Amino acid sequence: MAASPLLNQLMTALRCLPGVGPKSAQRMTLHLLERDRNGAQRLVEALQTALDRIGHCRRCRDLSETDLCALCANPRRDRSLLCVIETPADVLAVEQSTGFQGLYFVLMGHLSPLDGIGPAELGLEALETRLDEGEIREIILATNPTVEGEATAYYIAELAHERGIRATRIAHGVPLGGELESVDGGTLAHAFAGRRDWRG
Amino acid sequence: MAASPLLNQLMTALRCLPGVGPKSAQRMTLHLLERDRNGAQRLVEALQTALDRIGHCRRCRDLSETDLCALCANPRRDRSLLCVIETPADVLAVEQSTGFQGLYFVLMGHLSPLDGIGPAELGLEALETRLDEGEIREIILATNPTVEGEATAYYIAELAHERGIRATRIAHGVPLGGELESVDGGTLAHAFAGRRDWRG
Repeated sequence: MAASPLLNQLMTALRCLPGVGPKSAQRMTLHLLERDRNGAQRLVEALQTALDRIGHCRRCRDLSETDLCALCANPRRDRSLLCVIETPADVLAVEQSTGFQGLYFVLMGHLSPLDGIGPAELGLEALETRLDEGEIREIILATNPTVEGEATAYYIAELAHERGIRATRIAHGVPLGGELESVDGGTLAHAFAGRRDWRG
Repeated sequence: MAASPLLNQLMTALRCLPGVGPKSAQRMTLHLLERDRNGAQRLVEALQTALDRIGHCRRCRDLSETDLCALCANPRRDRSLLCVIETPADVLAVEQSTGFQGLYFVLMGHLSPLDGIGPAELGLEALETRLDEGEIREIILATNPTVEGEATAYYIAELAHERGIRATRIAHGVPLGGELESVDGGTLAHAFAGRRDWRG
């Protein structure tokens, strides 16, 4: 099999997966063809179906196979709270751990003028329309604590303030279970600046 | 996207890949759908083509998209040397590093009576037919140095000896660049038992 073109083609194709280098691609190729052809066939079908049918929710821009995603369509979510967030993975993380009951707006990125990503690419016009609808009381800025994420949060906070809507930023500080000495300086500075009164 | 059935289906399907757990499957799913739909489409096609067209070489049992694989069909390989080996991955490894110029016979496993894998499952009848053809002068046993691999090598060496064909076993010992203190006891015992005269 040293020179089979189809095997080489499959190994190359597998490298589009994040974290998969030449060695893993080879291992995956041989595993699929020798031991798990049924699993491989299921993977082909699941991936093709996902590519054909998953697009974006027209309201929150999250990945969705329906025109309106399950979260936006859910009547029990609090429509007065809107969490602005960078990616679908971030939505998953928040849903899995915070008990947040509002809605989301997924930017699918952050402002990055050098890469040609401005307000239009992040769908901020749709966000403004939504803020103008008057249903939203508070907008929670949950972009990443990076330079671009902070700039994006700042830009969106301005949009909210122009309309008299409260904008909040998630807290940054020392992670639970983290040790002060192993936390980076920026985080520690944030933790000190954002200190709060002890409630005994 | 917290509850999208198609996304969940894709994450589950990706877990058929070796070394991919729930977290990697989620990361791969989002990466493919958000950032690399073209790569994902190529992967679908490469995998489907491989599943449809890659079978086994009728002569050496290696994975092959042709009836006779490129190695078996190559007239420049030495037909008097036959390397018996467990998997297609092992063939790749030998081809990439040893300069071996003979042919292979791929067992696609090793004798393992408890799992129902006997001589028939390893194609040993075809191997016997091949030994009977009289072209082979030496059979190199390159099964893994495990209990099952050793048993398989022993069984095949008997088949060769019955026909007066030389059977050799690849050397086992301390790997190059390895340190004695970090080598396991079995390997060290092998290295001592298999010691050779110093050629100054």
